[in-house]
Amino acid sequence: MHTLSNSRDRQLRDRAASVIPGGMWGHMGTKYLGSAYPQFFERAEGCRLWDVDGREYIDFMCSWGPNVLGHHHPAVEEAVERQRRLGDAMNGPGEVLVELAELLVDTVAHADWAMLQKNGTDATTGCVTIARAGTGRRKVLVARGSYHGAVPWCTPSLAGVTSEDRAHLIHFDYNDVASLEAAAEQAKGDLAAIIVTAFRHDIARDQELPTVEFARRAREICTAADAALIVDDVRAGFRIDLGGSWEPLGVRPDLSAFSKAIANGYTMAAITGNDRFRDAATKVYVTGSFWYGAVSMAAAVATIRTLKGENGVAHIAAMGERLRGGLDRIAAKHGISLRQTGPAQMPMVLFDDDAEFKRADAFCAAALARGAYFHPKHNMFLSAAHTEKDIDLALEAAEAGIAAAAAIG
Amino acid sequence: MHTLSNSRDRQLRDRAASVIPGGMWGHMGTKYLGSAYPQFFERAEGCRLWDVDGREYIDFMCSWGPNVLGHHHPAVEEAVERQRRLGDAMNGPGEVLVELAELLVDTVAHADWAMLQKNGTDATTGCVTIARAGTGRRKVLVARGSYHGAVPWCTPSLAGVTSEDRAHLIHFDYNDVASLEAAAEQAKGDLAAIIVTAFRHDIARDQELPTVEFARRAREICTAADAALIVDDVRAGFRIDLGGSWEPLGVRPDLSAFSKAIANGYTMAAITGNDRFRDAATKVYVTGSFWYGAVSMAAAVATIRTLKGENGVAHIAAMGERLRGGLDRIAAKHGISLRQTGPAQMPMVLFDDDAEFKRADAFCAAALARGAYFHPKHNMFLSAAHTEKDIDLALEAAEAGIAAAAAIG
Repeated sequence: MHTLSNSRDRQLRDRAASVIPGGMWGHMGTKYLGSAYPQFFERAEGCRLWDVDGREYIDFMCSWGPNVLGHHHPAVEEAVERQRRLGDAMNGPGEVLVELAELLVDTVAHADWAMLQKNGTDATTGCVTIARAGTGRRKVLVARGSYHGAVPWCTPSLAGVTSEDRAHLIHFDYNDVASLEAAAEQAKGDLAAIIVTAFRHDIARDQELPTVEFARRAREICTAADAALIVDDVRAGFRIDLGGSWEPLGVRPDLSAFSKAIANGYTMAAITGNDRFRDAATKVYVTGSFWYGAVSMAAAVATIRTLKGENGVAHIAAMGERLRGGLDRIAAKHGISLRQTGPAQMPMVLFDDDAEFKRADAFCAAALARGAYFHPKHNMFLSAAHTEKDIDLALEAAEAGIAAAAAIG
Repeated sequence: MHTLSNSRDRQLRDRAASVIPGGMWGHMGTKYLGSAYPQFFERAEGCRLWDVDGREYIDFMCSWGPNVLGHHHPAVEEAVERQRRLGDAMNGPGEVLVELAELLVDTVAHADWAMLQKNGTDATTGCVTIARAGTGRRKVLVARGSYHGAVPWCTPSLAGVTSEDRAHLIHFDYNDVASLEAAAEQAKGDLAAIIVTAFRHDIARDQELPTVEFARRAREICTAADAALIVDDVRAGFRIDLGGSWEPLGVRPDLSAFSKAIANGYTMAAITGNDRFRDAATKVYVTGSFWYGAVSMAAAVATIRTLKGENGVAHIAAMGERLRGGLDRIAAKHGISLRQTGPAQMPMVLFDDDAEFKRADAFCAAALARGAYFHPKHNMFLSAAHTEKDIDLALEAAEAGIAAAAAIG
């Protein structure tokens, strides 16, 4: 049905092709997803989405992260509505800024202070700038293949990027202590920071949790050099551990970058930092026209409080485990091996013997046709709105997908 | 009254000081405004603001630009409410993205296409990246002192910035054709772009409209070199001319950056471009978690349509002229000379013999105490919600301010 030339999605794509370069920019363009995926959506509720042709999906991308409590969560919407009636973008922030900054400092274990932005890239770039300002040094160690945002110093495409934009980056391999030490040695005397994603969640490969050894060594190197350990918690933050995703490892960063799930879909990012970098954070000049908007701050306060009050992370993890267990059982039944990696809240499902992702695409297309929205090669996301019933329904759709994947030669 | 140590604003500042570096980041920190200015706001309506201590102001900063139609404008709020009930951040955009991109292409004279972001800095940085991708060259000509955003390549503070971040910038003086030509000569063979603000609106100096000669020469240089002419219309866009702020000059850029007024306070930025740079825009990878959010897009569509339908720019200009005329009359009456520069919609008021801005501060403090919120050294903004009565009331407050300024020795 979705391939009909007169579908609403097709009509909108045709119109978009003439007024948007390539028809769509960035990570929500469907070109990597296969032709069955809708590009345009009509509405959303809880963990459900409807595309512009009226088809309903149980969603496992959660807006690529932001939707952590479910669309239109009443506690968030009520806080938003209350603030919206008062005011949003004014000549300065509302009281809610102080409330949110205090809540972040109370919640995020390493945090002595917080600053707010609008994009994950704002937060990661801000962390790097603060680290350089606070150390007076330039080199930043970055894991090969890690995504830290979409501006010239870090964007995956090199179009429009100059070599100077990356002059002071030194690469290491995630979870590889020896390569991290070698990179630090190369930076010697000029090390400003190590920036590292909360876990390894690169596209199209198995996810890896950081080893305790790796995390501790990163901390030791930064402490010894008086450099900043930055955890890029944009993608994982507020889904793994409300205290920060490295808190279960017992390793605390100096600076963290958050965004995505922090305000349940409202536009928000945050840098948290410790007192070592407070003065540096005061000296850098980072700002934006909408960074003081009170409505998104109210949404963030309600989101974090709700996650705490309802033990949302544990529920999301339980739903992720239910999905994972179900997929394993179905795969065994169909005699196909798949790899499920990373935290259950942010699943990655990849098939063995699938270098070209044909099995993954067949799995996703068949599940999509039956109302489950999965991603073939990017980590997925669950929300607190997913119920056991949603997972079980999605597993029925997934069974058709796994059968289709198993049928690939 | 506002200096009472038990004011709500003071209490919030004290709390902010412990959880926010320096108590506040960026352009909305009041440290440059004088101690009488409130940092925190309670609510907003039309062109009026109330601070957290309940004091009411007729506002001439308009959230530093975004508030172009007035807070809670019914057409914008209705469009927002309709989209919000459906969905905001989903797994892709809503139909409203196509509607907004088409509206931008219809409205902005040079535009063949549009892309959306969240910060003005996203848009200016995106334009530079697209220009480099489209030319395969690196040098970007930038006017000395112009503000283009708050990331390392352009932010006013050098804390945390490396020399490589600005390795390919070459400076010229705004409106100085000879210096522009010299900069282009220096870039010869490697010129990617000239980026120029819609008019010269640097802080703490008289504003300057671009001369036709300067704008034409910038266009000629870019055309001859097949480089991109970028107009940074973030601050002025949708207040000067809906077709783009250089449209009255008869000079069209290749790329424009918009933000601030585009969605009446909702978080939105846009790049518009011509077909010369369409392919380059397809190749760069720029994106953000919230860049597909449908609610801000609905706000932008309603804002632009309302500005068109109600001839909003003409009304804003008329209110600006009324303010300007009134201030001139009052200044003459008090025997003090002031300079009012730039477009009437975005007034800059500076006093003669006021190198340390003591007169400006006295003017603003006295006007503020009487309910008019002016800025001593940054351009101000008017909105379509300002009425003749608001202007006349503000002029009464301003008269006390001008008397105070005239009393400065």
